[in-house]
Amino acid sequence: MRVYDIIADKRDGNKNTQQQIDFLIKGYTESSIPDYQMAAWLMAAYIRGLDSDETFFLTKAMLSSGRVYDLSNIPGPKVDKHSTGGVGDKISIILAPVVAELGLYVPMTSGRGLGFTGGTLDKLESIPGFMVNLDEGEFKKILKNVGYVMSGQTEYLAPADRKMYALRDVTATIESIPLITSSILSKKFAEGAEAVVMDVKCGKGAFMKTVDEARSLAISLVRTGQKLGKKVSCIISRMDQPLGKACGNALEIKEAVSCLKGEGEKDLIELTVTLGSYMLILGGMAQSFEEGKEKVLKCLESGRGFERFLLSVEAQGGDVNVILKPELLPSASKIVEIKSENRGFINEIDAEKIGVACIYLKAGRFKKDDKIDYGAGVMLNKKVGDAIDRGEALAWIHCNDESYLVEAIRMVKEAFIIGEKRRALPELVMGTF
Amino acid sequence: MRVYDIIADKRDGNKNTQQQIDFLIKGYTESSIPDYQMAAWLMAAYIRGLDSDETFFLTKAMLSSGRVYDLSNIPGPKVDKHSTGGVGDKISIILAPVVAELGLYVPMTSGRGLGFTGGTLDKLESIPGFMVNLDEGEFKKILKNVGYVMSGQTEYLAPADRKMYALRDVTATIESIPLITSSILSKKFAEGAEAVVMDVKCGKGAFMKTVDEARSLAISLVRTGQKLGKKVSCIISRMDQPLGKACGNALEIKEAVSCLKGEGEKDLIELTVTLGSYMLILGGMAQSFEEGKEKVLKCLESGRGFERFLLSVEAQGGDVNVILKPELLPSASKIVEIKSENRGFINEIDAEKIGVACIYLKAGRFKKDDKIDYGAGVMLNKKVGDAIDRGEALAWIHCNDESYLVEAIRMVKEAFIIGEKRRALPELVMGTF
Repeated sequence: MRVYDIIADKRDGNKNTQQQIDFLIKGYTESSIPDYQMAAWLMAAYIRGLDSDETFFLTKAMLSSGRVYDLSNIPGPKVDKHSTGGVGDKISIILAPVVAELGLYVPMTSGRGLGFTGGTLDKLESIPGFMVNLDEGEFKKILKNVGYVMSGQTEYLAPADRKMYALRDVTATIESIPLITSSILSKKFAEGAEAVVMDVKCGKGAFMKTVDEARSLAISLVRTGQKLGKKVSCIISRMDQPLGKACGNALEIKEAVSCLKGEGEKDLIELTVTLGSYMLILGGMAQSFEEGKEKVLKCLESGRGFERFLLSVEAQGGDVNVILKPELLPSASKIVEIKSENRGFINEIDAEKIGVACIYLKAGRFKKDDKIDYGAGVMLNKKVGDAIDRGEALAWIHCNDESYLVEAIRMVKEAFIIGEKRRALPELVMGTF
Repeated sequence: MRVYDIIADKRDGNKNTQQQIDFLIKGYTESSIPDYQMAAWLMAAYIRGLDSDETFFLTKAMLSSGRVYDLSNIPGPKVDKHSTGGVGDKISIILAPVVAELGLYVPMTSGRGLGFTGGTLDKLESIPGFMVNLDEGEFKKILKNVGYVMSGQTEYLAPADRKMYALRDVTATIESIPLITSSILSKKFAEGAEAVVMDVKCGKGAFMKTVDEARSLAISLVRTGQKLGKKVSCIISRMDQPLGKACGNALEIKEAVSCLKGEGEKDLIELTVTLGSYMLILGGMAQSFEEGKEKVLKCLESGRGFERFLLSVEAQGGDVNVILKPELLPSASKIVEIKSENRGFINEIDAEKIGVACIYLKAGRFKKDDKIDYGAGVMLNKKVGDAIDRGEALAWIHCNDESYLVEAIRMVKEAFIIGEKRRALPELVMGTF
């Protein structure tokens, strides 16, 4: 078998066989196939597409490119959740302890901030001492003891995906439904989950800007999951304005803690309850969506998820004290209030602009190895639909490094669109698959 | 400017600007843009295509990537010829001295054998001492003194093309009309020619198998040449059976010498006369195709081209004695006669199979750094249209290394198709542009 023919077949719009895809992924993982040949294949796959068989072969090959955790000696259903990334999305941090409390085991590998979207790992690391680089033994031990674990992707889980993702990032081959599908699912199932609920974000603050794109990805994820013999459910959720009110790492941990104590923003609760219910269904712990919702909501309101969160922080080496007293979390030396120049109703809060403001404040990264300022971020005072007075605060900017403060202020101001009439708030959950 | 956007634009089928293409080629030549990004762009360009503007920008950028010879102090028209490669194609060796004799200056850079096709440089190197690696000074001096020069591509002429060709070769991006166009023309015009006549080969023994492909390439070459402000003429010539009767390096030198002495095969003479006439027209040495043809034919018949060839061999360090006594050229220790098993007429001689037989005999290369056996090759006894008796020789295999002799014999036998009726011989020149 020759790599040349594998590339040429895809280039000409022909179907690659399972043997070809296995050969390609194995060779690339072992570095016997160089970057430039993989880059040519990725571009051909991007333009010509991969059908559902090829997507399945690719996902399977990437999943098998490294170690696959065997969680069979952990009793109970292993169900994970994955989000395609948004602004202010701290749902994993709220959701995992709640469903763990309800009997699921959640073996979660998360990512770092990417572009204007935040990452769960960065948020967790704003808790002093919290360790996200866990080896297989620690991962399994914490999962068994706490009921959930939140870890970074280690180099031996789906190594093909790590290499391919880095290459796609510099060869303009990221935004491909089959390539995104194989990247997400290979990572998720390498960690040993039996089922995954996907939250595909759609809108201004997401990578998928249109419902059509989001729907295509959702269908591809569900179908490929089925072919892998795994259970995958998928929702499409709106990401036009940030989720909740906090954007920025420690700010989001504080908001997640409030939510776990039963004092969450409406949209955070709705999304947690929806995703949690699907997780319970996949794990066999609820018979209907309504039953699942009720269980999750009750658990949230009871504050039991908070206790579970404390266990997790302790197990992963984090300072439990800062969770009990959130004012001890990293904070900002300067807070700038952004006032409204008009009276009316909030019609829009552009999530991407808020995300970019966070990057200017060092709550996110311009370049891959930029250091994060955990205390920085943007705290919204209002959400879409709220009334606002002239001179009233729209948001507060939390800042330590003022190098790009002017730009951050401009971005936050631009993010808000205020109208004379109240706009009907569209549904948060746009579809389920 | 970011490479990423240049790749993404081409990926999405948008037009790359001249600034983008200049940036890409400059960066790649200087190695600030890595192979994998160029590979992604090449695949996008292969699939999405490049329009005539982009092809022109690309050719110009590649042409300017290194030194461009200034031949302005050589008096007289500088006209080159290029062939896209075939089997038994020794036309350059015959044509250049003849048109030099008629007053043109021919600054020719040639290539080595590629796949099943032969290369002029390899053929010339079968003359002991003949040097093809000339620096700029030697190149110009020989061109001025002899009227023509035959050299390999040095690393400072169109270096972008060298790098890109090597990359295309392993990323399945060779067979693209715009990429082929830019590769050929950037090399040809870096050597200082004012005009070039192209011989686009078409058929079983060529890379372009169909007339449509050959026509597209011809049009692209002529149009891009015009945009560069250069004169380009193009013919499409049939490459189904080998050109002439000799295939293999020293065998072809012998045949070229015979032809230069006025004893050439009909097809060799026809192609030499056709290409030569167009060269004279481009150089202003003939007013009409008929006038050009007559001049070239007369020169061939007079044997004056042979004298010019001797000057060239001497100037490039070759042993003139082996040209005067061709039996001193490298030869074969073993000659195997391939006999016809039937009586009838030669309907076909598959040029690609003869070319592959030459590779088996080490007259060509399996791998890039294989050593060539200059004495080896295939000598045809018959051409398409000739009558043949049972037991009569179809061809002779000239062999030194017998490792793959069995395979070579099989290929030569398979190449011949003998029918009961004489087939009408199709036109050698299929079109001119």
